[in-house]
Order: sequence, then structure tokens, then C-alpha cells
Amino acid sequence: MTSTGSSAGGPVIREVATYDIRFPTSRELDGSDAMNPDPDYSAAYLILRTDAEDAIEGHGFTFTIGRGNDVQVAAIEALKPHLIGRSVAELCADPGTLGRALTGDSQLRWLGPEKGVMHMAIGAAVNAAWDLASKRAGLPLWKFLAQAEPEWLVDQVDFRYIADVLTPADALSLLRAGRAGSAAREEQLRERGYPGYTTSPGWLGYSDEKLTRLAQQAVADGFGQIKLKVGAELADDVRRMKAARAAVGPDIRIAIDANQRWNVGEAVEWTRALAAYDPYWIEEPTSPDDILGHAAIREALAPERIKVATGEHVQNRIVFKQLLQAGAIDILQIDAARVGGVSENLAILLLAAKFGVPVCPHAGGVGLCELVQHLSMFDFVALSGTTEDRVIEYVDHLHDHFETPVVMRDGHYVAPTTPGFSATMHAGSIAEFTYPDGRFWAADLAQTSEVKSSKETSDEKSTSAASAAQIAEEAAV
Amino acid sequence: MTSTGSSAGGPVIREVATYDIRFPTSRELDGSDAMNPDPDYSAAYLILRTDAEDAIEGHGFTFTIGRGNDVQVAAIEALKPHLIGRSVAELCADPGTLGRALTGDSQLRWLGPEKGVMHMAIGAAVNAAWDLASKRAGLPLWKFLAQAEPEWLVDQVDFRYIADVLTPADALSLLRAGRAGSAAREEQLRERGYPGYTTSPGWLGYSDEKLTRLAQQAVADGFGQIKLKVGAELADDVRRMKAARAAVGPDIRIAIDANQRWNVGEAVEWTRALAAYDPYWIEEPTSPDDILGHAAIREALAPERIKVATGEHVQNRIVFKQLLQAGAIDILQIDAARVGGVSENLAILLLAAKFGVPVCPHAGGVGLCELVQHLSMFDFVALSGTTEDRVIEYVDHLHDHFETPVVMRDGHYVAPTTPGFSATMHAGSIAEFTYPDGRFWAADLAQTSEVKSSKETSDEKSTSAASAAQIAEEAAV
Repeated sequence: MTSTGSSAGGPVIREVATYDIRFPTSRELDGSDAMNPDPDYSAAYLILRTDAEDAIEGHGFTFTIGRGNDVQVAAIEALKPHLIGRSVAELCADPGTLGRALTGDSQLRWLGPEKGVMHMAIGAAVNAAWDLASKRAGLPLWKFLAQAEPEWLVDQVDFRYIADVLTPADALSLLRAGRAGSAAREEQLRERGYPGYTTSPGWLGYSDEKLTRLAQQAVADGFGQIKLKVGAELADDVRRMKAARAAVGPDIRIAIDANQRWNVGEAVEWTRALAAYDPYWIEEPTSPDDILGHAAIREALAPERIKVATGEHVQNRIVFKQLLQAGAIDILQIDAARVGGVSENLAILLLAAKFGVPVCPHAGGVGLCELVQHLSMFDFVALSGTTEDRVIEYVDHLHDHFETPVVMRDGHYVAPTTPGFSATMHAGSIAEFTYPDGRFWAADLAQTSEVKSSKETSDEKSTSAASAAQIAEEAAV
Repeated sequence: MTSTGSSAGGPVIREVATYDIRFPTSRELDGSDAMNPDPDYSAAYLILRTDAEDAIEGHGFTFTIGRGNDVQVAAIEALKPHLIGRSVAELCADPGTLGRALTGDSQLRWLGPEKGVMHMAIGAAVNAAWDLASKRAGLPLWKFLAQAEPEWLVDQVDFRYIADVLTPADALSLLRAGRAGSAAREEQLRERGYPGYTTSPGWLGYSDEKLTRLAQQAVADGFGQIKLKVGAELADDVRRMKAARAAVGPDIRIAIDANQRWNVGEAVEWTRALAAYDPYWIEEPTSPDDILGHAAIREALAPERIKVATGEHVQNRIVFKQLLQAGAIDILQIDAARVGGVSENLAILLLAAKFGVPVCPHAGGVGLCELVQHLSMFDFVALSGTTEDRVIEYVDHLHDHFETPVVMRDGHYVAPTTPGFSATMHAGSIAEFTYPDGRFWAADLAQTSEVKSSKETSDEKSTSAASAAQIAEEAAV
């Protein structure tokens, strides 16, 4: 493996800066679900800096929920030799080549291949390259993709392991067909935006009163769909689902999300027990690896007219291919920061288009809404050509840390106009929430350490329950 | 998440030491295949140290091929809070609980779940716990497992996501049935050992002359099966396969291994082109994630009577479950250091037993032969009850770095008698090959740096091609 210098001369990537950024979200119970009771939303973040005169940077990240974000950063660091010295012009002319170079590193490949920590790191780097390319082109990423030639887009896709189902020729046909009427759809997108749905009412940690209030607020805000987390206690879920249906009435879709809580049989039984309240889809009913399990669940739930959705933890295009081949899902949920970046998501959008399966992206976390909106907007303008039965998840968390946060209007994502992938976090936010040395964490850990030492100097001296809990939490991190 | 202190008092895990150990195997072209041209066999290694008086340690590792081994070590480090302070007695009484605690960490889980870097790290830690438990019991791991009560073994298995196919009751029945005749099989094992096969002749980097010589040597050494790496150039593979068949005659099985090189269609065509030389199985014809792809390949190759094998890169029990459900494989290849350790391999052996599919473990690398022999020997004595069509891969590399290296006799693995999982590396080997500060690498990097600086001081001064290549290689690491 060697880093690729520019054969043509010209600017190169001169620095890859990485950051372990963590937000203390676990203290608010935002984001709690049946598998993730106490997430600290985090980003393993990188900045590509070049020696070009324009000083434009490429920003990218992968999302985690706290512990292990340092392992993600270590994985991004391991990619540096592939990035440093690479020609900016060549990288921006063909960002897809970076993904193939990174997934093809013969030694790093052993750590996946194309899954887990290493692949998420690759996704972060590839996304940074697409951010750089679209910024340098002066276009928001969705527009950068939508105006690209179909032949060029096909060249950005790695067809390895999916060519039995989707050939480059298939992809080219789909992209050419997607161009028909794209100007009108772009206009429509700029006027109305792209429909969203909100998960804000449905976290497991919320009271029924808060759930009802937030569900009603969601309808008032223009959302046509909300989502509830389920899977911890069946009796609670029945009660919460009933309250949610009562709050929003019969015409608003309510998705439910089990976050992989169940075995196949449990998934079917539990979901059936909620069928009276007309759930629209059951999301992540079981392991994201279980293609045949999802197919069995979908078959069992078809008489109830409940759709099956998954994807936020699906590791790569190869598993998505099989979910589609097996007829295992009604809704395909891409995630912008788990697979190998924009390039692999192009492959996944093409697979979904080939099978005619709607794509409803996973978002929330930190920055996921900012990223994934671009992929859906590209899909609408230049590939699937429709927003029917398609919605992007929306959660109103942590957007203010980004330079160009998502803008919602009447339940719709407003199309970004700023060049790039909307990935750029404020320098001040990075400085404050870098773990463990940023201002927030340094102060927080110092406080914990004070509490600890005061506890050590006198066992009699009382420490509050809150502080003790904090000690336990910090010790665990 | 909190570390588990001993409720009962008594010894606890007091230290988890980690090591980034790399062997410079790429310089010999040992281990080269179509996807891994230049592996540096490596171990992300840990030692569990307790405060018990016996000073017995638990050793475990995961195998990588060089770059990224530091990321693996970082992932093991992230597990420390789950390990430090844990009761030795409780851990050894139920090593399976550790696997569930580690895979269940709600924040770390996001980095998989149960796949890639984080899951391999969990496997290393779980294996160290089983090493500790069997050492403390004074038994080699295979015997520790084979003499255990079926009920206890079932308790060590995590049935999440596989219970639709294998219930605890199924597992108990299989283990109870496996006890019939186990004493006689144990005696047979101790006398004859467990059959192996060798990959030593078949690396892509070897000349035809070396291939022929090593293949003949393998037969002379008592092996009934050899394996050839394929997938780089078809004409070369036809020539090498012909030479290998000529060298060993018609009665020795020749497996071929493509290391994931192909798409589904290519896999079928390429393998058919070698059918005239009677390959016994085609291993890793395509992505390990492609369950349906393997099923299609197997169906297409059935008329040629060529078996399909995979598993060394299969991430967990959930994917193995589906490979069996889909009838995608004839041979299941467990790996001792990729999935979640002994506990998850118990689940996989049980799944294979339920479907009646032979298990032929992947080994080689560094230390993989040492580990996996125990799992096959347990399977023979107390589960499947047979060695028919079952062979453990054997490669004669790097065994001398282990305190109790595998012993081969007449093409068979001799049953270990030393307590533990045979995972313990010599302290001297660890010290010499720790990267980058061990004696070997420190000297190597110093030499590289000398070459570099002499190159820098005079561009005219000639540096040998070998040194220049070394610089490129080191820069890449």
C-alpha cells in the first residue's frame, strides 16, 4: 500500500485531523430505546486539509453512541497513509476511487471486510472526500450528484459482490431513466422540500404525558408520520401505542422501532399485539444480519398489513442486496455514516430503485439528518423520481453544532443550498466536546475527580446520589 | 455499564495487559493469496492477570494480517472496564456470561453489532476467559468442554437471534446424544489425533516447482488433503491445479481457496474451469456476507460434485445460521479468533450438528492452529461424534512462538494435554515482535530510518531496490 501522490502535480491532501467528539446526551434520556438505554451521541470526525489556495476542507464523520468512539478514531487514523499526499484534483474528479482504495487495503480488509469499525471509518473518510468535491464544485451534494452524468455516477460505484443483481449497465439505465423530468422535480424540491417524520415523541424514557404532547405537537408541525420506540415491556408498548394513536388520530402514520430487540418469533408475536393500533412499519425487529429472519417476519406480518423496515445497522451493499433479493423488507433505511460513504449509498439507492423499494433514511444521532437529506434529495430528483411513501427521519437534537444545520418547514426538509455535504461542525463545538480534553469534558471529569477525592478523604462525608451515579458512569466511560 | 466486582469476595481480575504483536511474514511471501498479497501475520493479544495466589493467567488474541492491529488493540482496551475487578471464580464458573456482557454493552454494541473489529476484540477477551477457566480446572480446553455437563454447556451459549433455528432444548438434545460413546472416542483421539490438511504447498507466491515438491512432501507426511490458493489468473490456476493433481495422484483431496475474489457468476465459471482436476471444495468463492450468493454457487456447482466452503470471515452465529438455512454450504469453516470466542463457536458447532454439516476449521496465521484444534476435538468427542469428512487446516508457520505449540503426527493433530487453550505465547516472542517497540521492529525501523536519512542526505547515493521497497512498505505501515 502506498499513498497516492499526484502524478499531475497540483494540490494534495496535506493533513488529516481527527477528533473524538462526544455529547453528554445520556443525562437527558433523549435517544433511549430498548437496546440503547443511555447513549452519548458522538462523532468520530475527520477534516481533510489540502495545500490548495482555496483552503477548502473536506469534513466527514461516523456516528457512535459514546464508548468506543476512540476506537473509531483509531480506525480513521489507520487510513491516513491512503489519504495524505493524494491529489485533490484526482480525488474530487473521482471520489469513488477512494472507497475502492480504502476497502481494498489488503491488510486492513482483514478487519472486516466491509463491516463494523473499519468500514465505518472508511465511510467517514469517503464522505469527507465527497464533501470536499462538492464544496469545490460550489454545489450542495444532492445537486452535485443530481447534475452529474449517469456514466460518471456509475463509475463511482463498486459493483463487486452485487453484480449478480445489479450490473453497471442496469445502473446506467436506471440513472438515464431518472433524468426524465428531473428539472421539474428539482423545482418542486426547492419549493416544498422533502417529507420528514419525527421520532421525538417516541423515546422509551418519556412519560405517556410527554409522548402525547409531543405527538400532538408533531402533527401541528406538519409531520405526517411519527415513530415510537418499542420492545422493552409489551404492556407498556400497548399503552403507549394506544396513547399515540389517540393523540394523532387515524390518518397519521405511526412507525414502531424495536432496535433489534427480538428473536424472529418474538418479533411476530409482539408486533401482532400492537396491530390494533395500526402501526405503519416495524423497524429493526431483529438482528440486522438476519436476512432470512426478516423475510420470515415480513411474511408473517403481511396479513396484518404491517411493513418491515431495516437498514440503519446494515453493514454494506451486499446485505442490502440480499434483503431485497429475499423480499425481506418493505422499506429500506439507508444510513449516511455506517456503510462506505456516499459511493456505497449510491449502490444501495440503485439496488432499491431496481427492486422498486422505497428508501426512508435513518437519521437523528448527531449530524445524520444533515448528511442523509442529500442522498434522498438526489434520489428524488435524479433516480427514483418520487417521494411517495418516502420520508426522512427527523430528530431535533444537536443541529446547532453544525455550520449549516437542517432546516425543517411544515414537516419537510428544506433543500440545502450551501456547497458540500452539510457535515461541517462549528470549530467551537469541536473544541468544547472533544473527549476527554475539550472544555466540557475536562470540567466534567474534574468535577467527578473532586467528588471522588472528597469521597476518598472522608467516607463519612455524604456525597449525593446524583454524584455517586455520575462517578459510576464516568468510571465506566 | 459497570465492571463486575466479586459479590463473594475472593480473587478478581486485576490487570488486562494488551500487546500489538506483528511478525514480518510479508517478506517471505508465505501466506500470499488472491486478496492478501503481503500479510504480516499479527496478533492483538491480551493477558488477564488475577490477584489469586496461583498466578494463573488467561491469554487470548485475535489474528490480523498487519496494518490495523493497533485498532484491534484499541478495541480490546475499550473492554477493560468490563474485565477489571471481575470475580475470577464467577468468570471461570460461567465464561459464557462474559460474552453476553461484552456484546451487550449498549454503547460499544453500536460499533457492530457483533461484527468486525469490536466483535473480534470481544472474541479475544472471551477466549482469554476460557483459557483461564480451563487452566484453573487443570484441563486442556477440549477436555474441559467435553467433560462438562450438557446443561452447563447450554448455559454458556447465547441463543439470541438463532432461537428460531436452534433452541436451548435442541442444543441440550444434541449434547446429550453426543455423550454416547464419548469415552471410546476420547481414547481414539488420544491415540490417533484429529486429521489435518495442509495449505503449505498452495500459496500464490510459490513457483510450480515448489508447489509440486511441497505437495509431494504433504502426502509423504500423511496428509490426505492439501489446499491451493486460486483466483488471481485463471491460466495460472489451471496450470497449478494440474501440477498439484499430478503431484498427489487421484486419491488425495485438493481443496481450492479463492479468498473472496469473485462475484457469483465468476465464481461458478472459474471453478468449473478447474473441475477437470477434481477440486474437493471451493472455499470463499465470494463475499462471506453473501448467503444467497453462496447458495447460488453451490447449486450451480452441484453437478460438478464440487463442494462449497466458507466461514473464516463469517462474522457471527447469525450469518452461519443462515448459510445453513439456505443450504449455501457443504463445509462450515469455523475460526477460533473472529467470532465471539469459544462461547459463540459452541453455538456454531451446535448449529452445524443440527444441520449435519461437517466443520473443517480455518487455521494458519499465527496461533489459529493452536486454538481451533480444541474446538474440533471437543466436537468429535462430545457433539458430532465423528471425524468423517472433517479436517483441520494446518500451516507450519510461527508455532515456535507458543509455549505449547501444536504437534502433528502422520497428518494428524495430536490432542493437547497441557491445561488451557494453547494460546500462551512465549514472553520472549512477545517482547521481540511487539510493534513498533519490540526488539525486532525497533531494529528494523531504525535501519529503515538510517536508509531514509542516507537517502535524504544524498540523492545521488544509490539505495538498493530492496531497501527502497522496504521504505515504501514501512511508510505504509
